[in-house]
Amino acid sequence: MKATVAIIMGSASDFGIMKDAKELLESFEITVHVEVVSAHRTPEKMVAFAKSAEEQGFKVIIAGAGGAAHLPGMVASLTPLPVIGVPIKSSNSMDGWDSVLSILQMPNGIPVATVALNGAKNAGLLALRILGCSNTELRHQIKEYARKMEAEVESSQSKLQ
Amino acid sequence: MKATVAIIMGSASDFGIMKDAKELLESFEITVHVEVVSAHRTPEKMVAFAKSAEEQGFKVIIAGAGGAAHLPGMVASLTPLPVIGVPIKSSNSMDGWDSVLSILQMPNGIPVATVALNGAKNAGLLALRILGCSNTELRHQIKEYARKMEAEVESSQSKLQ
Amino acid sequence: MKATVAIIMGSASDFGIMKDAKELLESFEITVHVEVVSAHRTPEKMVAFAKSAEEQGFKVIIAGAGGAAHLPGMVASLTPLPVIGVPIKSSNSMDGWDSVLSILQMPNGIPVATVALNGAKNAGLLALRILGCSNTELRHQIKEYARKMEAEVESSQSKLQ
Amino acid sequence: MKATVAIIMGSASDFGIMKDAKELLESFEITVHVEVVSAHRTPEKMVAFAKSAEEQGFKVIIAGAGGAAHLPGMVASLTPLPVIGVPIKSSNSMDGWDSVLSILQMPNGIPVATVALNGAKNAGLLALRILGCSNTELRHQIKEYARKMEAEVESSQSKLQ
Amino acid sequence: MKATVAIIMGSASDFGIMKDAKELLESFEITVHVEVVSAHRTPEKMVAFAKSAEEQGFKVIIAGAGGAAHLPGMVASLTPLPVIGVPIKSSNSMDGWDSVLSILQMPNGIPVATVALNGAKNAGLLALRILGCSNTELRHQIKEYARKMEAEVESSQSKLQ
Amino acid sequence: MKATVAIIMGSASDFGIMKDAKELLESFEITVHVEVVSAHRTPEKMVAFAKSAEEQGFKVIIAGAGGAAHLPGMVASLTPLPVIGVPIKSSNSMDGWDSVLSILQMPNGIPVATVALNGAKNAGLLALRILGCSNTELRHQIKEYARKMEAEVESSQSKLQ
Amino acid sequence: MKATVAIIMGSASDFGIMKDAKELLESFEITVHVEVVSAHRTPEKMVAFAKSAEEQGFKVIIAGAGGAAHLPGMVASLTPLPVIGVPIKSSNSMDGWDSVLSILQMPNGIPVATVALNGAKNAGLLALRILGCSNTELRHQIKEYARKMEAEVESSQSKLQ
Amino acid sequence: MKATVAIIMGSASDFGIMKDAKELLESFEITVHVEVVSAHRTPEKMVAFAKSAEEQGFKVIIAGAGGAAHLPGMVASLTPLPVIGVPIKSSNSMDGWDSVLSILQMPNGIPVATVALNGAKNAGLLALRILGCSNTELRHQIKEYARKMEAEVESSQSKLQ
Repeated sequence: MKATVAIIMGSASDFGIMKDAKELLESFEITVHVEVVSAHRTPEKMVAFAKSAEEQGFKVIIAGAGGAAHLPGMVASLTPLPVIGVPIKSSNSMDGWDSVLSILQMPNGIPVATVALNGAKNAGLLALRILGCSNTELRHQIKEYARKMEAEVESSQSKLQ
Repeated sequence: MKATVAIIMGSASDFGIMKDAKELLESFEITVHVEVVSAHRTPEKMVAFAKSAEEQGFKVIIAGAGGAAHLPGMVASLTPLPVIGVPIKSSNSMDGWDSVLSILQMPNGIPVATVALNGAKNAGLLALRILGCSNTELRHQIKEYARKMEAEVESSQSKLQ
Repeated sequence: MKATVAIIMGSASDFGIMKDAKELLESFEITVHVEVVSAHRTPEKMVAFAKSAEEQGFKVIIAGAGGAAHLPGMVASLTPLPVIGVPIKSSNSMDGWDSVLSILQMPNGIPVATVALNGAKNAGLLALRILGCSNTELRHQIKEYARKMEAEVESSQSKLQ
Repeated sequence: MKATVAIIMGSASDFGIMKDAKELLESFEITVHVEVVSAHRTPEKMVAFAKSAEEQGFKVIIAGAGGAAHLPGMVASLTPLPVIGVPIKSSNSMDGWDSVLSILQMPNGIPVATVALNGAKNAGLLALRILGCSNTELRHQIKEYARKMEAEVESSQSKLQ
Repeated sequence: MKATVAIIMGSASDFGIMKDAKELLESFEITVHVEVVSAHRTPEKMVAFAKSAEEQGFKVIIAGAGGAAHLPGMVASLTPLPVIGVPIKSSNSMDGWDSVLSILQMPNGIPVATVALNGAKNAGLLALRILGCSNTELRHQIKEYARKMEAEVESSQSKLQ
Repeated sequence: MKATVAIIMGSASDFGIMKDAKELLESFEITVHVEVVSAHRTPEKMVAFAKSAEEQGFKVIIAGAGGAAHLPGMVASLTPLPVIGVPIKSSNSMDGWDSVLSILQMPNGIPVATVALNGAKNAGLLALRILGCSNTELRHQIKEYARKMEAEVESSQSKLQ
Repeated sequence: MKATVAIIMGSASDFGIMKDAKELLESFEITVHVEVVSAHRTPEKMVAFAKSAEEQGFKVIIAGAGGAAHLPGMVASLTPLPVIGVPIKSSNSMDGWDSVLSILQMPNGIPVATVALNGAKNAGLLALRILGCSNTELRHQIKEYARKMEAEVESSQSKLQ
Repeated sequence: MKATVAIIMGSASDFGIMKDAKELLESFEITVHVEVVSAHRTPEKMVAFAKSAEEQGFKVIIAGAGGAAHLPGMVASLTPLPVIGVPIKSSNSMDGWDSVLSILQMPNGIPVATVALNGAKNAGLLALRILGCSNTELRHQIKEYARKMEAEVESSQSKLQ
């Protein structure tokens, strides 16, 4: 079956964070494709990936990277698909500020939908919402998901004693 | 005609920035609805707006706010639609950091697609890409837009002398 | 007995910090009500809570939250009561800056009384001072508390050898 | 007539910001006392002021200062009254961060209710809310004020065209 | 005559800063090639430029960019030549921090020689030093340049009165 | 014997850092007096201490504090002696930025000689240099100390293999 | 007459800030010597200056610099005299943070007495206090100066109306 | 055999980071010289080292330092050789910002090629690229190295399952 969402990351070590996006999407029965694509170490693979992403049938791309994180922005410059960027707090980073700013502060013309530092789960949820634009059933499931979160908050009240 | 994208902002003074999103989307013949909705000064209107947004037929919401910018995140918590957040550098802000962090750092469960500080134009482009997920023609136009930017870069070479 | 101070927080995991406010207030025999109210996961409960807080007899609300912390500001927009905001340094936060700025930088019109990062104890003491405005006995107790701190500093001198 | 709220500031040049608190409170017919009290240039006057504030009949103190802003915290250490701190972005400051952190990050034991950078108007509104704890009529006026803000948002819609 | 140093920038508007590198190098009779190459708006041109830079005979590349500045790092990933990155403080940037961190914090494997914010002149001087590694005469000129700066400091003493 | 240097700190828990100043000064046979003096918990003791410091025969005061660190600046406002401020990175601080800025950014009129975060040893050395202004023998010892550091660097070369 | 205090700066353009130190000291009839000494453009002159400063009879050195400000720390490493560092907010700096951190964060062994950003006046006052350690008359004048500041605060009350 | 690259650092404790540069260069059979040279503790040795570096036959200098890191900039001011600066995140630093800014923000006239925080490996790779300017064989090896990184990314895909 063809994957709807591509989850790419700059390094296999980022998968500890990025798997949250994969698990979230799979829990909604969205097929995902996961791949290490490094803007800096595999720049030509990145270009090829981004240029063919639409043809491969992906609807949304989630890209995670740390430090000087160029992957989300570069992929966005080579595809008409929506790209969700996940800043990752890697070792030796400037406490994550480098990754956040490298992904967020894209110049006019090339948007990246940035989520919170290490926010891969929200990247998955944002992909769902994007897919839900043309899918009433999926929007329904998103509302169900929200109701479950609401119920969990209620059941967590007992922890306060 | 029904609007596809809602552009909301915390204050009418934010329109100086947010109109870039409106103009961008209208140049692609996307119908937009523009409204001042303040999380803090009109909280109940905000709740009503967000809860009815799906029913009103909006596909994407763009929300801009400055300072402690709660509008994008609060709206996202009340709708299954994708919400794009535009941090605005308002006077007396902490140089925009307050707005960026208040919008970007959403907790797991409620995603906001954040763009750059004052990045309303990119918010418009991101909305286009989201709508393009289920619209081949729109994706084609996005690629045309990219080609135009490319050509503009070329024609700007003359300014270097 | 009716509670005088409501202590709310975005997640049960915040109680590790927020219990300092509870314990401080209870040591002054102020009755407190503690509840998880999430701006993002239970937005409608939050609205209902905030709108009824005055009627329920609360005099002060203490609200703690981490990351993009919208709870204190949103509650303040829906009640005439004083709201004390406690920024919480949660995991994956930008070292607490996100929480501090999301609570502190409220726009004109809706004030939040912000205390230090993880400063739940001071939130409790601030609530006491607010209640003390119309309570001479309570102000007397606050002065007693200050004297005890003073004495503790004196008795700590022995640790310097 | 005795003043209910004292508004103090480290320098007369801070009055350009701090007058917003005065005007707001006076519009609610709260009597205010305004005075320059510098923690660093008039430390003994500051001590005398703070120690006598309760006796003088003040209910709330609003203290504004820029740079290494010690005034709000020092006054809070010498009075049982609630102290509201207003960080001021003065020239040669580190873009206001110095003032914000010097006021906000008080140690356990001595709370300061901090508002946004240059947020003197909100300091006035917070003082109102504090006074409203024991004053039903004032709480009513605060709700009226909120309704007016709501109406202003509505009437500002016309500016979007 | 073939150019030794390529000076590229993300936008023609960056030339106001980047011309300092050009003028510095030309004052040392180094031939430079100046071109707008945008990582985001002309990604394929950027790849082609970077991949052919060595063959074109460039010895050093100077790349300037603002905001989420991906140009220097991406070019460095596609060439074995030394790449000097110039962070540019553009409008709507986070006071230049975005540009600095996007260029500086490159992951292991792909180095960029970063200079100060808007430091195009130093980028030119660094290129000179790099070329001087295998050019005794150029090193001699760099030492002459240093002596001139020294003399200028001396002659500036008169301004202190 | 009368102490020449007073080392004060806001909390006994700061002694873990501040003892470096004590040990350094004692290794130069300077008599020190160590005391917990809290600006916020013992404000009147602080005033009394600072006002009598000159009479007590102290020549230099070293004051360490964390968070919203008001001790060094307040003491400086009450004595004509030089005051050295040591910012301390305490728990729940904003990574030390609060302490650094609260001590460093003093307004014109009241200087504090600020050293690095947790830099108590350098505070001791700075006190020595200040005392050395009128003491040739002490200046000689400072130069000896510098020579020892130089020798230590040399002997540390062996660790590089 | 021999100068007691040397005021040095990295560039003649820093004199706009540094003259405040000169004027302050001269108003107390302290003889000052003013000179441009650049750590980077005149490194050998800097070494010669610092090594001979004690012999030349200076008692205190005030050094101002912007950006990567190495002058105060380098001079301190070459003299036993107390060195006061003045961070200067120069154009193209990172809003002064570079200068502050380059001067403040000296490693153990070499202290620099750092004052606020652009705080040259306080540098002058700190030099006075240092000289006052062994000069009762000077300490008396410092106390007089404090009294004048106090009086000025009082007379500024009229501006509040 | 004469060393081509000098690797210097402010303290032997920096070698834990700086050895990455050494190992990288040695794997390319570049001879390196490693030495502790402290700007602050051995300033005269530093001057002597920097002034003689060209004559000693070094082609590139790599200098690492933490905190107020003056070593790279000072060495650059005393040699015509290219100097690569490695900011090191030392204990008690301001999370590495001090080191980054002290090295990066050099004034016009004296360039330092700055790499990422703790980026000693990239410093080694940058030195290689600089040497490669006049060495076709070395450029060939750099391209080989890039191909190996590319292959490693591919082989890391298996970790994603």
